[in-house]
Amino acid sequence: MLETIDLGVTIAPEEFKELKDDLRARLNKAQIEAWQAGLGVIVVLEGWDYSGKASVTRFLVEPLDPRGVVVNVMYPPSREERRYPFAHRYATRIPARKQLGVFLRSWYYHALDARIEQERDDITNRVVLQMINDLERSLADDGYLIVKFWLHIDRKEQKRRRKEYRGNKLLRRWRTGPDDPKQHKRWKAYTAAIEDMLATTNTECARWHPIPATDVRYAQAMIARTLCEQIENALAARQRPQPAIPAVPPPTTSGTGILAGVDLSATITEKEYERRLEAVETELTELQYECVERKRAVVFALEGWDAAGKGGIIRRLTMPLDPRFYAVHPIAAPRGEEAEHHYLWRFWKQLPPAGHWAIFDRTWYGRVLVERVEGFAKPHEWQRAYREINTFEDALLQHGAIVLKYFLHLSDDEQLRRFQAREEVPYKQFKITPEDWRNREKRAAYVPAIEEMIQRTSPPLAPWLVVPANDKLVARLTVLEDAVAKIRQALER
Amino acid sequence: MLETIDLGVTIAPEEFKELKDDLRARLNKAQIEAWQAGLGVIVVLEGWDYSGKASVTRFLVEPLDPRGVVVNVMYPPSREERRYPFAHRYATRIPARKQLGVFLRSWYYHALDARIEQERDDITNRVVLQMINDLERSLADDGYLIVKFWLHIDRKEQKRRRKEYRGNKLLRRWRTGPDDPKQHKRWKAYTAAIEDMLATTNTECARWHPIPATDVRYAQAMIARTLCEQIENALAARQRPQPAIPAVPPPTTSGTGILAGVDLSATITEKEYERRLEAVETELTELQYECVERKRAVVFALEGWDAAGKGGIIRRLTMPLDPRFYAVHPIAAPRGEEAEHHYLWRFWKQLPPAGHWAIFDRTWYGRVLVERVEGFAKPHEWQRAYREINTFEDALLQHGAIVLKYFLHLSDDEQLRRFQAREEVPYKQFKITPEDWRNREKRAAYVPAIEEMIQRTSPPLAPWLVVPANDKLVARLTVLEDAVAKIRQALER
Repeated sequence: MLETIDLGVTIAPEEFKELKDDLRARLNKAQIEAWQAGLGVIVVLEGWDYSGKASVTRFLVEPLDPRGVVVNVMYPPSREERRYPFAHRYATRIPARKQLGVFLRSWYYHALDARIEQERDDITNRVVLQMINDLERSLADDGYLIVKFWLHIDRKEQKRRRKEYRGNKLLRRWRTGPDDPKQHKRWKAYTAAIEDMLATTNTECARWHPIPATDVRYAQAMIARTLCEQIENALAARQRPQPAIPAVPPPTTSGTGILAGVDLSATITEKEYERRLEAVETELTELQYECVERKRAVVFALEGWDAAGKGGIIRRLTMPLDPRFYAVHPIAAPRGEEAEHHYLWRFWKQLPPAGHWAIFDRTWYGRVLVERVEGFAKPHEWQRAYREINTFEDALLQHGAIVLKYFLHLSDDEQLRRFQAREEVPYKQFKITPEDWRNREKRAAYVPAIEEMIQRTSPPLAPWLVVPANDKLVARLTVLEDAVAKIRQALER
Repeated sequence: MLETIDLGVTIAPEEFKELKDDLRARLNKAQIEAWQAGLGVIVVLEGWDYSGKASVTRFLVEPLDPRGVVVNVMYPPSREERRYPFAHRYATRIPARKQLGVFLRSWYYHALDARIEQERDDITNRVVLQMINDLERSLADDGYLIVKFWLHIDRKEQKRRRKEYRGNKLLRRWRTGPDDPKQHKRWKAYTAAIEDMLATTNTECARWHPIPATDVRYAQAMIARTLCEQIENALAARQRPQPAIPAVPPPTTSGTGILAGVDLSATITEKEYERRLEAVETELTELQYECVERKRAVVFALEGWDAAGKGGIIRRLTMPLDPRFYAVHPIAAPRGEEAEHHYLWRFWKQLPPAGHWAIFDRTWYGRVLVERVEGFAKPHEWQRAYREINTFEDALLQHGAIVLKYFLHLSDDEQLRRFQAREEVPYKQFKITPEDWRNREKRAAYVPAIEEMIQRTSPPLAPWLVVPANDKLVARLTVLEDAVAKIRQALER
């Protein structure tokens, strides 16, 4: 992709002057129209050191309404940032829909640098690039326009600029990082890696635009024009009648029988429960410290019918834990900023750093449960969510996190009994709301959604466990003992 | 406060065992009732190294519903955190109302450590403690219950525990920081500083509870009991009829005449404007880099009548700036999480780090403008806001930030003309909403609110400038030239 670039192209000063005002007006108009249409725009500016990324950023941003623009300057990840999965610092910085977010350096810089400097093996590189493609695809599916630029110069030009910067106080100011000779020294290795990276990630939903940048003004004009075109095209595409989304067969109310096949009859004596609870709690204490020491994160995903006892399980799970190293995240419907981002955004923000545990009381699976059943997500939205969620959890697993998922299953009768009991006990009344009763009526619609979720999001390293929850003691032990076994197993790998 | 503590008190194991279950049930009940009553609780756990803060945290948190608890473990501030004002990392971690937030170490540890190790002068120490008192007071005024514990042991006991920990792998795990001998070496200096700190910050709205901690169980029981009592008392106090809040004289509609006295007639030729704009933009570019180099933050607060031209000013202000080092924050009504916190919380979160500029398009002054006029804040709430805001800005100034505040004043006629013009031009229609027209009708109520704000929040280092905005060109130059002059002046100090 880079070889064919003509690095000799320039733009005459007079021509640039004439173009400039047009481009500025066009950028401004495109941004305001994107804002009004709710089109989120992600601009990725990558390129060689000294290729002029900062000056292009300035040229692009200057004519825009600054209230709708966020510029993210990505330095190499700090020690704190390295405690999270690779994509964490990027996914949490994605602009809200309507906004235009510029990444001055991005996930690509990080991927490239790690590849060359850490001499990662090919498979890991493939995986990282695949993760990037997945992330971009899920953003594009969510309606974002992604426009990626590679600013290209040759080795001689880089050398010339480095020298020029060194000798000039004003130019040196522009550099926010130190003058790092590594690219220059390993030009060939970088070129090969860049070529491969651009080719692998030049997807239909997020195209690369290689830009010859020997002449800075030429690069500025080309990038501004390309960005305008991309925004205009995306807006025009929204105006055109959309191809019909293939109809989805209406969900059956019978399901696959996974839930019906769960034996809910098991019970346990109080004495046996106490004995095993004590044993498992001792193990949890021990395992938590082992995770701290070995910097392994654990993510608990708890889903289940209303009144299935999630709260009680979380209580028993956290009791033996050191509160310095875990957090519980109760999940309700997305609000404010959350609703203006991709539905996974808020979960990226709540991920535990390496060594910590995070317990989610309801989760990202809301997308394929409540949002599907209530129609908050359209069929094609929740249908693609299975893949998006698997990708999201893959990113956690890749980083060494242990992912544990439990669905608490309860019979219809037992749920009714618990609802009624809650209404009778004054201090439990706050736990039951009219919404719980409404949800209850939709049980038949939830069954196939739950079963499809279990089938489609149970990869070998992060399978669902369906927990029989008619007996609270059985449910608690099942979750805690399974968690202990899986964490221990993961630590031994 | 510490001298009189009897460090010999202990609790017998049997007595503790009996107490324990009662305390746990009582803590649980207190937490749930606080949640239901919307009472935010802030627990501060401070004490000597090795005094058992972590084990107390665990004892307190264990019986609580983990979905309502956040534990913040505060290590010494990182390099990144030091780029923000002292209180930033604490203010942004304050729990939402309803939640119980535990600070295992807090702003006090930070203040104490900096005092002893950096040998700060007495005046700086006073200022830091005063800032702490102000922060706690504003939280207490907002309805939070603040309960502070100092875990006390003597030097011999600390020595004994350090030795014990060193020799014991299991105990060592509990320590998250390195074994730091500095307290032990400078015991006397620490004691004096602690005594002074506790005395200075033992305010009516946030009391210290010194706890003898030689016997860990005794400390656990005492702290749990004290916390229960405090929550129960706070809840009971809410049930009692509240003392009537002194009536506020109804706002006059005439005001002080500050606004009426502004000369709105000034105009400027296009040519003169272009000449001066170019000059001031060159200076802004230069000053921004100087701020980056000298690590000085700049905070712009822009308020003004609707259609006064804030957007245009922000455009001209940001055009000459390097987008890597500034951010624009448009402020709307608080939503979601924002509404569940103190109104200053979201502004703490958006502060610029040292060296960066932040431009707020509408600000924290909404509390004494729209919230006052529309009745969203009660009279005693907006009345105390003047002090809270001055304190907030003081914290920025203390950290070296430059605070620039502009109120854009527009005549009634000119506003009407602009509203009508916007409605006539298709691509400007999105700028005008029915709400703008409603606000316009309330002009008479806004005048005294604006004037009181200007009078009460104009300290020498962060005064308001009322900008005549009938002529857009005059308004832009006034703001930009004033900003340049004030930033230059601040950099010279």
